Amino acid sequence: MNNLAVNADRLWSDLMETAQIGGTQKGGIRRLTLSDEDRQVRDWFRAQCETLGCTVEVDEVGNMFATRPGRRGDLPPIAMGSHLDTQPTGGKFDGVLGVLAGLECLRTLHDAAYQTNAPLMLVNWTNEEGSRFAPAMLGSGVHAGVFDPAFADTREDSEHNTFGSALDSIGYRGPLKAGSLSIGAMFELHIEQGPILEAEGDTIGIVKGVQGMRWYDVEITGRESHAGSTPMHLRRDALTSSAEFICAIDRIAREMKDAVATVGTIATHPNSRNVIPGRTVLSIDLRHPDKGSLDSIEAQLDAALADIARAHGVTATMVRIWDSPPVPFAETCLQSIRQAARQCGYRSREMISGAGHDAAYIARVAPTAMIFVPCAGGLSHNEEEDASFEDCKAGAQVLLQAVLDYDRRFGDPGIETTEAGTGRLNDKQAASSS
Amino acid sequence: MNNLAVNADRLWSDLMETAQIGGTQKGGIRRLTLSDEDRQVRDWFRAQCETLGCTVEVDEVGNMFATRPGRRGDLPPIAMGSHLDTQPTGGKFDGVLGVLAGLECLRTLHDAAYQTNAPLMLVNWTNEEGSRFAPAMLGSGVHAGVFDPAFADTREDSEHNTFGSALDSIGYRGPLKAGSLSIGAMFELHIEQGPILEAEGDTIGIVKGVQGMRWYDVEITGRESHAGSTPMHLRRDALTSSAEFICAIDRIAREMKDAVATVGTIATHPNSRNVIPGRTVLSIDLRHPDKGSLDSIEAQLDAALADIARAHGVTATMVRIWDSPPVPFAETCLQSIRQAARQCGYRSREMISGAGHDAAYIARVAPTAMIFVPCAGGLSHNEEEDASFEDCKAGAQVLLQAVLDYDRRFGDPGIETTEAGTGRLNDKQAASSS
Repeated sequence: MNNLAVNADRLWSDLMETAQIGGTQKGGIRRLTLSDEDRQVRDWFRAQCETLGCTVEVDEVGNMFATRPGRRGDLPPIAMGSHLDTQPTGGKFDGVLGVLAGLECLRTLHDAAYQTNAPLMLVNWTNEEGSRFAPAMLGSGVHAGVFDPAFADTREDSEHNTFGSALDSIGYRGPLKAGSLSIGAMFELHIEQGPILEAEGDTIGIVKGVQGMRWYDVEITGRESHAGSTPMHLRRDALTSSAEFICAIDRIAREMKDAVATVGTIATHPNSRNVIPGRTVLSIDLRHPDKGSLDSIEAQLDAALADIARAHGVTATMVRIWDSPPVPFAETCLQSIRQAARQCGYRSREMISGAGHDAAYIARVAPTAMIFVPCAGGLSHNEEEDASFEDCKAGAQVLLQAVLDYDRRFGDPGIETTEAGTGRLNDKQAASSS
Repeated sequence: MNNLAVNADRLWSDLMETAQIGGTQKGGIRRLTLSDEDRQVRDWFRAQCETLGCTVEVDEVGNMFATRPGRRGDLPPIAMGSHLDTQPTGGKFDGVLGVLAGLECLRTLHDAAYQTNAPLMLVNWTNEEGSRFAPAMLGSGVHAGVFDPAFADTREDSEHNTFGSALDSIGYRGPLKAGSLSIGAMFELHIEQGPILEAEGDTIGIVKGVQGMRWYDVEITGRESHAGSTPMHLRRDALTSSAEFICAIDRIAREMKDAVATVGTIATHPNSRNVIPGRTVLSIDLRHPDKGSLDSIEAQLDAALADIARAHGVTATMVRIWDSPPVPFAETCLQSIRQAARQCGYRSREMISGAGHDAAYIARVAPTAMIFVPCAGGLSHNEEEDASFEDCKAGAQVLLQAVLDYDRRFGDPGIETTEAGTGRLNDKQAASSS
């Protein structure tokens, strides 16, 4: 039905080239948001988009929007995109694939002089990872009105640099008011970051929604004292109490079907070999597709922590610092993805995303859905994260066809005849001629 | 029997004055070894000793030796001393009391023009705490031949500064070869850092020895992966495994009478909220008065760690980085302390030290013993560490009398008649005249 094929070699070459910006010895990427490496990849991204004739606009929190005009000026753009920042020891595909595959779609359309009805837009969202500045998905969250720009500005990294100062220092605070560009729909291609597609032998995940996520800060305070002369029964050890709580978190998550809970960070004070720890802080990342289950787990965690505090004579607090409810994606977008996967002949399955994504926030302001492709061993947030050439190609091709399918609701697209007309058929013409 | 009384007000004033060097808001001290604060207190100490006519020598690892001549040049000095460095959030008495009480003893003798047979020596040992540069008791260990000076030089702090460069930067690398000054005996006064004296209503602890201590480095390696999309049963979580091990360490220590075990430090990588930790490192401080029990606990820890590693699919190593065997103190020194405590009329008890001390290493090269006084609630390695005026006075008085009792074995001491003769009676004359 469609003779427009992405150039997978060109996509792969872009992936490998940009992976050098912040590239690590183990083959991953360290490209923290708003770092100098982030600036470099943003400069590269802007230049590539401008080469294709796109207008690149930047909003006040650094989100980058490259727009390719459509035939109709009255329609809001159909967006593709994801993020170019990475974890501290991240892989080459998380986020990057969604942006560079979108770029490849624009190149393919450009080469074919294919003109859509709606404008197309390729977006690089700021600070999706949240590992330098919490919370995650900050740029898309500001765009969707979940967070104020002023809130974003004042987030601090571990060295007390603010998001705002970091944004200014790399020169990516744009003039555009956040959220002022309206989006007609958004498609985000991403690696699954989990093991399901690979295990089931499927190539395309049709992502119907994102599970709910909650982040907590936990602080346990005991009493610092001497490791040699304080008998075991007189201790109020903040770290041993924390260890018991970490075991309880693990147990509670395992007991609830489809739940995952992770303690990703911990720090203890004074952190000296021969001092019983007086204070420990740790984080919890809790996820489940269902809000009621999240509530139930949260109550169990609260109760377990209170029990441990009583048993050890310590005080403990657990504060929910972030709550992202389960997100259903738009049926209209899902239909286009299903149609595209079917056209391409890829094995696909419908699924829920375990990870958070910019699409989860954009879904609040525009019809949105996601496309997943497999990654090796389900491994992500890891320098060894890997995705195959064939799967990246499949993902980019489904992304292109889903966008074109969605655009077809606005009328027949056509070849650009005035300037760059190459005489190539548009996809409807191709279909009717085959 | 003895009319020489320490000036407790002067001692207390010294304690409070020097506590300002590195003083914290909570009333403790942060005076890490070889820091600028350490330099300041060393300068102060040197000046005070020189005022009393002592010769101050510094060895190649920064140990400071202030010598007051005796009547007989053929005798090695009787030493007093401890350390002036502190924990990162340390108290005002740990170590400091032993040095400043020794200084008060010298002042008392100076004021009385009391001349001992043997020279007296007051020592400030470098890096007793070990919290900036591991291992602890490094200066006294080098003096006793346990460590090479070159080993000390290459120790690194968490910011990769070496011990040697820090020593040079504060100007306290002395010309004296480590261990070249011989010591005839050493008495170390210290707060108990535990709850026993206070609980039993005793003022003086006659410390018969130090329990054995072992330090371990533990490293657990799992697999970094995404916190949202990695099901619980497919995780290899280094931090959850570490938490189970910390709980096992606690359980094993509680099951063995008189054992204490502490995990004082922990770090996890990459330490990101939404990444399952791939690597965790932690330390263990294990102590027991008996070597066989230490061996048994070590074997149990090894076995527990191996079980946890198998169950979680992680790899784990536990390396013993320091081993300080149980130390018995010298009966000759203990006799002098018993005699002094009896003369003063203080309630005393014989005990084993739970904490490590410089005296434990010096005991390898000279007859050595320790005197303990109570500290509030047994609390130490804590900014709220506290000892009473009366107990500090008692400790200093017992220290003085124990040293003079020990010195009496070399003959009758006397008043200095040649230069500073004040006509005051020496203690034997006083005793016979009362």
